[in-house]
Amino acid sequence: MSQSTLADFMKEYKQKIEQKLRFYISSLDSPPVLKEAMDYSLQAGGKRIRPVLLFAAINSFGKDPERGMDAAAALEMIHTYSLIHDDLPSMDDDDLRRGKPTNHKVYGEANAILAGDALLTYAFQIIAQSPDLSEKEKVAIIEQLAKAAGPEGMVAGQVADMEGEKKALTLEELEAVHRNKTGRLIAFSVRAGALIGGATEAELAVFEKYAYHIGIAFQIQDDILDIVGSEEKLGKRVGSDIANHKNTYPALLTVRGAREKLKEHVDQAIEELNRLDIETALLKDIALMIATRDS
Amino acid sequence: MSQSTLADFMKEYKQKIEQKLRFYISSLDSPPVLKEAMDYSLQAGGKRIRPVLLFAAINSFGKDPERGMDAAAALEMIHTYSLIHDDLPSMDDDDLRRGKPTNHKVYGEANAILAGDALLTYAFQIIAQSPDLSEKEKVAIIEQLAKAAGPEGMVAGQVADMEGEKKALTLEELEAVHRNKTGRLIAFSVRAGALIGGATEAELAVFEKYAYHIGIAFQIQDDILDIVGSEEKLGKRVGSDIANHKNTYPALLTVRGAREKLKEHVDQAIEELNRLDIETALLKDIALMIATRDS
Repeated sequence: MSQSTLADFMKEYKQKIEQKLRFYISSLDSPPVLKEAMDYSLQAGGKRIRPVLLFAAINSFGKDPERGMDAAAALEMIHTYSLIHDDLPSMDDDDLRRGKPTNHKVYGEANAILAGDALLTYAFQIIAQSPDLSEKEKVAIIEQLAKAAGPEGMVAGQVADMEGEKKALTLEELEAVHRNKTGRLIAFSVRAGALIGGATEAELAVFEKYAYHIGIAFQIQDDILDIVGSEEKLGKRVGSDIANHKNTYPALLTVRGAREKLKEHVDQAIEELNRLDIETALLKDIALMIATRDS
Repeated sequence: MSQSTLADFMKEYKQKIEQKLRFYISSLDSPPVLKEAMDYSLQAGGKRIRPVLLFAAINSFGKDPERGMDAAAALEMIHTYSLIHDDLPSMDDDDLRRGKPTNHKVYGEANAILAGDALLTYAFQIIAQSPDLSEKEKVAIIEQLAKAAGPEGMVAGQVADMEGEKKALTLEELEAVHRNKTGRLIAFSVRAGALIGGATEAELAVFEKYAYHIGIAFQIQDDILDIVGSEEKLGKRVGSDIANHKNTYPALLTVRGAREKLKEHVDQAIEELNRLDIETALLKDIALMIATRDS
């Protein structure tokens, strides 16, 4: 499959998920400031890489990606809540995200915390109410999403990341932080898509390995872009990791070493997919795109 | 049923839910500071009125209340997360809760936010994983819990409460705030118990009216205690509502008027239950207890 096919797929489903997210917020009977704050950060999204992964995973089983729309909306809401809370003054204290003022800069700290809480809670409601999923699928997806996002997943990663700022981590420790902080939600994207697509246990296991490798690749490229990236394209200041003495892959391995590590993980991700009989060209292209993205 | 029967029931199930909550935190593979912060606020619980309501509702259908243990644990986690976030400096800025320093006073603001996020997320995981509930029950309970706690429920109430501090509310507006902020989670307690107990639609409708009235009664007594209550028994400073120009029932109706309103709602709650053929003595006693509690 060519890059332009991936580009078309991404464009189509980015539009669809953004429309769905707008619909879900506009249909809320909530205080206007809460709806605005939720919508503001949801609409400030980037490439929607997590929903795209979920849709591509369903697609690889020859199923209609639209069946995953509610799971993708929930996933993007949880990703967005985590960005809102991470940006708070008591956390990373960021003023800018994707070229726009962060949520608490616009709506104040209390509303930002509550908008995050609301997105997190609403995500589970949307899956539970989905007309597209069976009860069995809903329970499995809710369980996996909560595990990926909760105290043994994304939240654990954020706590460990903040604790880690106080000391130098080994490569193993750094990977453990990122596996939880960003990897778990990426793994959920792929796993939920496979589940909705009707994957066998063996296929699920392969998808999990693929997700593990692209999760790390994603984080390495994030770290590299903070050194060599364009502030304009990223919509945020670069160089902040070095200034904040953050534990990063380039800091541990040099930029060149980090790039080698990145390539290894992308190669391994693609190799995993080669073991399957299904159509995985889109997922392979996503792995390559993650490694070469500039924003 | 006598008061001592309610006291026995409350004592037994308070102990059971607290044991379950301890188990759920101790079994987590999470950073120690996160587990500690989650456990700290969960263990600082009061009478566990919401779980007790859920258990009593199941009991009224002659079913074993233990089947509701996971729903009750999830419910108490979500109630606890809301207290942690409400106490934050950018929200109500409280230093003391039930006689102990608030979560952010002990663990810092970032960990308090994350402990709240973790409790909220874990709550949904626990229901999804429950061995005691059918898939149909899980989906229904998750949907109702998310609706009660989310952007059209508890979070909406907290946003409206903060907005309301800037102006004087009418009695209708005040009730609307509290119906969301505290009423929805109390209503969930009763409704989830009825659902697990196997209530008919007609019984559910009666339970909802009962829950509506005790929810308001609960809030009125809260407001009255802030004026006439004992700091020692409440474990927090009294008089803060007046100092903060908060909209309260006594401020709108005088203490005497608020007490009359309270009695009306308790009477109506009990009257609703009289329409049912099932054993509702415990639920009636809980309504009376809510009106006469001193902490």
